[in-house]
Amino acid sequence: MSDAAFLPAVRAPIGAGEFDRDSALTPRGPGVYDIDLGHGWTILDTVNGGFLLAVVGRALGDALPHPDPFTVSAHYLTATVPGPAVVRTETIRAGRTLSTGQASLFQYDENGAEVERIRVLASYGDLDALPDDVRTTARPPELPPAEECVDSQDGPSPTDWPIAERLRLRLDPATLGWAAGRPSGKGETRGWLGLADGRDPDPFSLLMAVDVLPPTAFDLGLTGWVPTVELTVQVRCRPAPGPLRVSIVTRNFAGGFLEEDAEVWDSADRLVAQSRQFARARLG
Amino acid sequence: MSDAAFLPAVRAPIGAGEFDRDSALTPRGPGVYDIDLGHGWTILDTVNGGFLLAVVGRALGDALPHPDPFTVSAHYLTATVPGPAVVRTETIRAGRTLSTGQASLFQYDENGAEVERIRVLASYGDLDALPDDVRTTARPPELPPAEECVDSQDGPSPTDWPIAERLRLRLDPATLGWAAGRPSGKGETRGWLGLADGRDPDPFSLLMAVDVLPPTAFDLGLTGWVPTVELTVQVRCRPAPGPLRVSIVTRNFAGGFLEEDAEVWDSADRLVAQSRQFARARLG
Repeated sequence: MSDAAFLPAVRAPIGAGEFDRDSALTPRGPGVYDIDLGHGWTILDTVNGGFLLAVVGRALGDALPHPDPFTVSAHYLTATVPGPAVVRTETIRAGRTLSTGQASLFQYDENGAEVERIRVLASYGDLDALPDDVRTTARPPELPPAEECVDSQDGPSPTDWPIAERLRLRLDPATLGWAAGRPSGKGETRGWLGLADGRDPDPFSLLMAVDVLPPTAFDLGLTGWVPTVELTVQVRCRPAPGPLRVSIVTRNFAGGFLEEDAEVWDSADRLVAQSRQFARARLG
Repeated sequence: MSDAAFLPAVRAPIGAGEFDRDSALTPRGPGVYDIDLGHGWTILDTVNGGFLLAVVGRALGDALPHPDPFTVSAHYLTATVPGPAVVRTETIRAGRTLSTGQASLFQYDENGAEVERIRVLASYGDLDALPDDVRTTARPPELPPAEECVDSQDGPSPTDWPIAERLRLRLDPATLGWAAGRPSGKGETRGWLGLADGRDPDPFSLLMAVDVLPPTAFDLGLTGWVPTVELTVQVRCRPAPGPLRVSIVTRNFAGGFLEEDAEVWDSADRLVAQSRQFARARLG
């Protein structure tokens, strides 16, 4: 497909897009950062878990000696709402190739006491310092051209879904049967993904990219909210400019929980991120 | 296959096997546990990362209000050697269905100062309280009968591999081409797994089961040590008695790092654990 059919002709540069502005942190002290979380990246008044991981990821990228997230594990404690938040980081280990850190994002209760929303362990490195060797059997997902996919803003979506206006998302119709009451039962979601202002992907936006498609639970015939318990993302290389392809698969729903395995591919056909999320779901 | 061909006729009960004895912790104070790590679960004088996760998992199972690991994320900091260690836990959140905790395992330097080996975030629940609903497209790995698989103690292994004596492991010959200099290039390892004393699997031994087969890197033609950076395990249901089947696949080696995706199936053909590990590997 042509980028022109999907992304805006004029793209916001990395560092100056909506994503950069809204995930920017203000240092309060060593390893401590303030942020005012806006409504722009919410679904049903809850801040998207992927965006939240990107915010915490940026804090750790500043605090740790290495710049890029290699593997990031997050456990979600309570729902994050728009408003002020603080990210507190700790450098656990600083090695030559990798450093490991921890971070928590807190908001405030009515008395001003901190309430923890998400806790993260992460190992960071320098993607640009890695050798080019690749041995892979992974293949990009087969997707119809973006022109034949369903614009998430045209499709069925909660009315209060501001994040959809920040994304450019075209979903594979084969994974949208649930919208017409005919879920495939395969547990798959696939689509083209970009940012609405054309800002190209970077390692931090990849932390969000794994968690912004509709839940695979819908394609399994499950309904309702699918709260994330834990989400771990690996960033495998710096993404090339242009649209991403995201494929998410659930193989096993059992006992009220499921895994969501996401892969993100860049315009150069490279696997740029992988994730697995463990979430609760209700039998619909 | 028949269990009789694989597991000993008389099995150590859960709670009284070698695994239970060697991973048992002594409470030092609230949420703090001592353990003397023996040589029994080492490879090349390093304590196996899966066994270590089981030790930390047992500490959290004692400290948290819920008994069973649902999803456990570990970042490995420094190699763990036989000798005394302390596990310090923190209860982050205690909910109705899930509780979330953090734990670190430390050893001691020559001055007695604590050196952190592994840090863990985990969400625990009660496997026996979950509904029986299952929707799955996952299928057990196709494995030859255990009788036609290669006993890990007969096969090619480092000479200093005490953990092999604690396990009963029969590897699919199709994934052992590397031992004869002919790796398949597929990045696969599969086999039957039990404990040598016949002790049946439980959620804690599953935390180890995902990390005791030979590295998939060998089947990709890579050589040398494959140190774990991060390992996240989901336990999906309580395993039935009897042998486990473990399948591990690597799809993408890039820039000196690879993922290892493990699935563990029980004798009732249920997917009992999933994991993804992010590890370093060298181009051989």
